[in-house]
Amino acid sequence: MALMGAGRAGREHATNLGSLPDVRVALICDPVTAAAQNAAKLARADKITESVDEVFDCKDIEAVIISTPTETHAEYMERAAKAGKAIFCEKPVSLDLARATQALEVVKECKVPFQIGFDRRFDPGHAEVKRQIDAGALGQIDQFLSVSRDPAPPTKEYMAKSGGLLIDSAIHDFDIARFFVGEVEEVICWASVRFCEYAGEVGDVDTATTLLKFKNGAQGVVQNCRRAAYGYDVMTEVSGEQGKFVIHAESKTPTYHFRKGGWERDYYYFFMDRFGPAFRAELVAFFEALSCEHPLSPDATDALESLRIGVAATRSLREGRPVKIAEVGTERVRES
Amino acid sequence: MALMGAGRAGREHATNLGSLPDVRVALICDPVTAAAQNAAKLARADKITESVDEVFDCKDIEAVIISTPTETHAEYMERAAKAGKAIFCEKPVSLDLARATQALEVVKECKVPFQIGFDRRFDPGHAEVKRQIDAGALGQIDQFLSVSRDPAPPTKEYMAKSGGLLIDSAIHDFDIARFFVGEVEEVICWASVRFCEYAGEVGDVDTATTLLKFKNGAQGVVQNCRRAAYGYDVMTEVSGEQGKFVIHAESKTPTYHFRKGGWERDYYYFFMDRFGPAFRAELVAFFEALSCEHPLSPDATDALESLRIGVAATRSLREGRPVKIAEVGTERVRES
Amino acid sequence: MALMGAGRAGREHATNLGSLPDVRVALICDPVTAAAQNAAKLARADKITESVDEVFDCKDIEAVIISTPTETHAEYMERAAKAGKAIFCEKPVSLDLARATQALEVVKECKVPFQIGFDRRFDPGHAEVKRQIDAGALGQIDQFLSVSRDPAPPTKEYMAKSGGLLIDSAIHDFDIARFFVGEVEEVICWASVRFCEYAGEVGDVDTATTLLKFKNGAQGVVQNCRRAAYGYDVMTEVSGEQGKFVIHAESKTPTYHFRKGGWERDYYYFFMDRFGPAFRAELVAFFEALSCEHPLSPDATDALESLRIGVAATRSLREGRPVKIAEVGTERVRES
Amino acid sequence: MALMGAGRAGREHATNLGSLPDVRVALICDPVTAAAQNAAKLARADKITESVDEVFDCKDIEAVIISTPTETHAEYMERAAKAGKAIFCEKPVSLDLARATQALEVVKECKVPFQIGFDRRFDPGHAEVKRQIDAGALGQIDQFLSVSRDPAPPTKEYMAKSGGLLIDSAIHDFDIARFFVGEVEEVICWASVRFCEYAGEVGDVDTATTLLKFKNGAQGVVQNCRRAAYGYDVMTEVSGEQGKFVIHAESKTPTYHFRKGGWERDYYYFFMDRFGPAFRAELVAFFEALSCEHPLSPDATDALESLRIGVAATRSLREGRPVKIAEVGTERVRES
Repeated sequence: MALMGAGRAGREHATNLGSLPDVRVALICDPVTAAAQNAAKLARADKITESVDEVFDCKDIEAVIISTPTETHAEYMERAAKAGKAIFCEKPVSLDLARATQALEVVKECKVPFQIGFDRRFDPGHAEVKRQIDAGALGQIDQFLSVSRDPAPPTKEYMAKSGGLLIDSAIHDFDIARFFVGEVEEVICWASVRFCEYAGEVGDVDTATTLLKFKNGAQGVVQNCRRAAYGYDVMTEVSGEQGKFVIHAESKTPTYHFRKGGWERDYYYFFMDRFGPAFRAELVAFFEALSCEHPLSPDATDALESLRIGVAATRSLREGRPVKIAEVGTERVRES
Repeated sequence: MALMGAGRAGREHATNLGSLPDVRVALICDPVTAAAQNAAKLARADKITESVDEVFDCKDIEAVIISTPTETHAEYMERAAKAGKAIFCEKPVSLDLARATQALEVVKECKVPFQIGFDRRFDPGHAEVKRQIDAGALGQIDQFLSVSRDPAPPTKEYMAKSGGLLIDSAIHDFDIARFFVGEVEEVICWASVRFCEYAGEVGDVDTATTLLKFKNGAQGVVQNCRRAAYGYDVMTEVSGEQGKFVIHAESKTPTYHFRKGGWERDYYYFFMDRFGPAFRAELVAFFEALSCEHPLSPDATDALESLRIGVAATRSLREGRPVKIAEVGTERVRES
Repeated sequence: MALMGAGRAGREHATNLGSLPDVRVALICDPVTAAAQNAAKLARADKITESVDEVFDCKDIEAVIISTPTETHAEYMERAAKAGKAIFCEKPVSLDLARATQALEVVKECKVPFQIGFDRRFDPGHAEVKRQIDAGALGQIDQFLSVSRDPAPPTKEYMAKSGGLLIDSAIHDFDIARFFVGEVEEVICWASVRFCEYAGEVGDVDTATTLLKFKNGAQGVVQNCRRAAYGYDVMTEVSGEQGKFVIHAESKTPTYHFRKGGWERDYYYFFMDRFGPAFRAELVAFFEALSCEHPLSPDATDALESLRIGVAATRSLREGRPVKIAEVGTERVRES
Repeated sequence: MALMGAGRAGREHATNLGSLPDVRVALICDPVTAAAQNAAKLARADKITESVDEVFDCKDIEAVIISTPTETHAEYMERAAKAGKAIFCEKPVSLDLARATQALEVVKECKVPFQIGFDRRFDPGHAEVKRQIDAGALGQIDQFLSVSRDPAPPTKEYMAKSGGLLIDSAIHDFDIARFFVGEVEEVICWASVRFCEYAGEVGDVDTATTLLKFKNGAQGVVQNCRRAAYGYDVMTEVSGEQGKFVIHAESKTPTYHFRKGGWERDYYYFFMDRFGPAFRAELVAFFEALSCEHPLSPDATDALESLRIGVAATRSLREGRPVKIAEVGTERVRES
């Protein structure tokens, strides 16, 4: 297979690929040679290249992992699909819903296996809760809650191209909402700039709260924030007839420090500390499903539907009213 | 002092009064003699009566605790105020905002000390967090979250007279929202009947989610539900510039049972197990403030403003739109 | 009933007596008038006295609570027993095993109800685990662990009269060991002075570890220390065939403070914060058993056997060898 | 480098070697071809062999990992040392203290780098606490506690060759005791067969409690058990002047299941779930130290001294008395 993109996520994928004994990485593709070389070493890859053409032209390559900048995802997906390669693509497919839809259509027509990079589903906690929900442990689900906070805002440059807090970050919460509860019918979002001035300058917010009405009548809430002095905070709760599940990784190390005044523990700061195993697990799942010819998951629908919730939330924020997901057509998230 | 009402809350107050060495309970007033007698024993009261007149006429009585049915609160408050007695009144003052406002006006004019029964403020966890917030531990507050679930719905009769989930139960969450973050500007509420049919029959809901926009720009969420298989669930979270506080009482007893498959703990089931000490602490605070001639808290404004949020949330639910607190005049919560 | 001794424990008992509606405190007896007056107010007692004779002579008094200094326990127990009064006595009965045995013999002969003040049995956690063990939740018990640390050493004066760390403090751990696992056959104790010089001067230690061999073959460990910067630390673990129970009260308030670097909680500092409810529960149990004419527990045997383990551990420490409980006759704990 | 032994631990090492980009595995050596092949795939090794000679003769091999059966460790260490190769050896070096001492002498004389496989030191929790202790966070250390329980006893065959519970399992606790507190002066051990009959048949025990007296006067306790219905239980506590540290990994997944009666979490069952990252980290540390020419740790002294504590505990158990570590010469652990 080939790895496209050797940036932050690409590097993590390279490390994981290097530890999968059944996977041979033929090619690392990145315009920055040093990054490609570094990733190649981690992935024990055969070769590096700057040319994306080389990836799509190489007959030996059966699968590609796309972790390039978002604006290239749709094109590369289409090219990979037409070349008959299985695709693992980082989220989101595109900030332009029409473009995303189009690319996913091509994938569908070409009948190539496709998986979107919603790593949180592969966190042992979230995966276990999904199993329990499917086994009926909750009965009817009534309420959902997801809180995600980053330790600090990204750079202005990143933010400007990210699609905003509701697409870039909350999309993970929206995906888990769908994963646990089902399709969303309507959203309302209240959000604002509270501390990160340049978020406002690029048309983004730093603090958001989104209400979700699910098609089955359940109620959801997503809280997002671009700062958290204590670290990288992800908490999920889903409750219903028989009880509730909470997923919260409380500490990075299993250490309790009792000292004058009480006791303390550490906490996660980098998302990779919290979801590193999930990043590995999603690739394991991808290659296992390929080798067993099982359907991949999360798939094109998951990629698209979470994006639509993000777009609807963005519109709700702008227009100050509840927005039905069905209203969301093929609009761009933000004019840039 | 005198205790008016010897029902569930009254009985609890009686027990706590009995354990306050500086308080002499002169009179227990309840139309049900057996209940009054029982409470009198718990409170070591001098005497019982069926006559509310006797309470207001007795010159020796300096303070009254009103834990009678909600519809009598406003009248008894006014009569107590006019008789110059200090007042501790269970929430809410009235389901009719105009009536509540009027009663609180009388209290103000008579210059008698007044405290409303928002016990949650006296929970050691919530009280400690308030102290820390006031000391600047959080800096600017950005987000607030409060989850309250009862183990099971109340009776249809109780529900019909309760003012509904948003007044009867969420009012505690709204009070803590104001206590921690400040005044609320606008709300939107999504709620429905999910499992308790008779809730619908009396015009109530069983599951609700309310968004709060605070005047200082912070964002809040309140989740309420009338069932929780695991027990009485109250969780509060407030986050900001410097970090966050979470208040969650995890278990009734400090016991961990490790057995095949993992480990387990118990949980709170009755609200009095969780907030029993807070019920006692609010009375201690009431009598201490009286004896020191300190101002009482939570006061008439707290009583009124939390009620207004509940009324606004109820209106938002009915009209399917965000409602500003300023819109809420002197309306009744529900025509009965 | 009458309360003898209005010191630290006596004052706590007075508060609890004041809140028990079915108990009438006729007399508080303490040579310090101010202390007696204070306790009388808390207990809503009829009268105070400096004269112990008055307590034993008063026919109306059916029960006495003895929380006077340890050296008086045995005498007062005997006098109360001969006067036909039910007895609740703080631990230990005496530092002199012979004297304790003698006093308990008198109690037995007079057939008066007797309860020893091992409050830890009435902690909701320990009580629940006992119920579970009796219901077979653990099957065969293999190991026991009890850790008790005080926040700081007591005064030299207190220490000199206390019987030492192994009698004064570890006796609670030994009692719980017997409560959960059964009779102890042999002990070995390693202990030393690590930080509190005056402990050595009065023949005491400040840090101790005691191994217990139970008659049923189970193994136990008790760790004690006279300092803990973080507070009052009591942790109990009992494990066996089907799993284990841990009893550990993790925090005084249900508050989590997430801040730079991780999160923190408070902890117990005063033993009364941790075991206050147990102090109340043991009195409730005492009066309930009296009124139902049920046998009291923990009883004279419990009082004596825990003391014997403490004496055996003290001997093991002095002689540097394992000591069988059966070796321990009627010796004094320490020559003073 | 070469990996000798492709059993359970060897396989784990192979996986970790496969994910270390800077390490080239030239050779996997195991008499069982299938195991060697499997490990070779995981480690992406160049070649497999049945011949240990090939390992020691190959000039290209700079380092060996010895995870063969215990009885071969000493010989292979000596041969590797004489061939000038760096050595990572699983614990213990030998069940025969004289043999272990001899082998470690050879290693010393040959001046090859040597690391013993005490993985627990590399657990993020234990490593962090060591850093804190070294930074003075505890001040004087007074007490140490380590509890280790396996979910179920190993097979009789394994047990017969393992050196017994005190060498095979408790040696990890003894190593952490030395790591955190310092050298041990004296031990006393009480142990017995409680449930695993064949433990007795091969001269082993299934439940043990060991007291440690450290040279600095601190007191330690180690509890071991060969069964735990709930899983693989490792808890470490170290306390002193300024507070205490507890290391306890509470659950395998960050999931809380609230259901009727309370809530539950899962727990670790296999030691590799709990200490998998530590297994990887010890190899990372080994190769990093080699490439930086830093001293390795834990070293030959650590290997020997923990073994001596185990031997002393075994002797204490047999002879029913405290045993000083200095008494332990070069004896075999058990005649087999």
